[in-house]
Amino acid sequence: MIPNDSLDGWTPPVPRRTIARPAAAGSLLTAPLDESPANSTAAAVRRITEALARVDPNHPALSSYLEVLRSLATSLEESGQAVPARLDQIWQGDGVTGHDPATGPQNPISPPLALYDVGDGWAEGVVTLGLPYQGPPGLVHGGVSALLLDAALASANALMGTDGMTVALDIAYRRPTPLYTPLTVRAKQIRVEGRKRFVSGEIRDSGGVTVTASGVFVGR
Amino acid sequence: MIPNDSLDGWTPPVPRRTIARPAAAGSLLTAPLDESPANSTAAAVRRITEALARVDPNHPALSSYLEVLRSLATSLEESGQAVPARLDQIWQGDGVTGHDPATGPQNPISPPLALYDVGDGWAEGVVTLGLPYQGPPGLVHGGVSALLLDAALASANALMGTDGMTVALDIAYRRPTPLYTPLTVRAKQIRVEGRKRFVSGEIRDSGGVTVTASGVFVGR
Repeated sequence: MIPNDSLDGWTPPVPRRTIARPAAAGSLLTAPLDESPANSTAAAVRRITEALARVDPNHPALSSYLEVLRSLATSLEESGQAVPARLDQIWQGDGVTGHDPATGPQNPISPPLALYDVGDGWAEGVVTLGLPYQGPPGLVHGGVSALLLDAALASANALMGTDGMTVALDIAYRRPTPLYTPLTVRAKQIRVEGRKRFVSGEIRDSGGVTVTASGVFVGR
Repeated sequence: MIPNDSLDGWTPPVPRRTIARPAAAGSLLTAPLDESPANSTAAAVRRITEALARVDPNHPALSSYLEVLRSLATSLEESGQAVPARLDQIWQGDGVTGHDPATGPQNPISPPLALYDVGDGWAEGVVTLGLPYQGPPGLVHGGVSALLLDAALASANALMGTDGMTVALDIAYRRPTPLYTPLTVRAKQIRVEGRKRFVSGEIRDSGGVTVTASGVFVGR
């Protein structure tokens, strides 16, 4: 960790609300999927990550790719900002959802899962996951399912005009969730008790529900 | 999705056990952290992902980086294998843990979290997470905490010589988990009832526990 990464003394800004209420039915709840340089760059890194998972680790060409990637990493690091400054910009400017590790098109880690207001309080999106998200053979990692559901639950909560930190997330794995198959991820706020918001969600493949989730958020 | 990605008709191999029991105390439970080309390439992509999160999305140099990344992605895609063939190799050859999205050093998505047998049944590791893993301002995404805990729970379960699929994962968020701070992630199998294995885990920062997890695995 380089010294300017320290967040000691940094005061988190109150995030700008990224969702207007009520959202128009059908509207995108997560960050814009345009072909901006930031989105496109992340998409290219995502392709590299998927391709690397398909390459034999003993492939003789890996070493030459390594040199190019290292050189690129060094250049990009020189173009970057110190973390506290960058965080202030993310939270007051270009919006966190672009960087979200589940839904953010600017984050190469995310698939990304785009979520829409599909009516009746549901936040819903469809995503197909490849090798980088594998747990058991041919199946989605259980922790990745949890990551996607956590994001969907938070989005469904925000859709109802409430926000808050997750205090509990319970996941039940009912059937295996396959890779390379379109998966529907959806969530809905079920009820509010004081500052507590209860939200449920699920992942479905063509055969029905594979994973369910219940979450509790506590708002301000 | 290109046609040869289909897993229809593909039979998942029974994974080769990657953990011998009993593991020597102090031994690594996750994939080797050597500087192999596959590990080093993933590490370089990880640096790019972190650096991209620090670059202003309007930075004029992004477009030139984009061209290089796209060209590299295309070359790598040409060096890759069809998914079913690659999956067979992963599961019968080089070991899944290298590709695990939480612990795998060959997977740019993972931090990676390396887990060790630290005695008394605990699987434990220390990890520092940067911007790509952010949820709320300056904090770890709740779904990322779930991903790391799921992996730690599975590792603790395997450490006791049992395996199995996760059927339930309950996460409680007790305090915010900070970015750019060493976090200890650990888990331990608590009890076995028939085919059910109960495992608990937690994430700690220097101030104590931030997140706890309970999981139930069902073995063969």
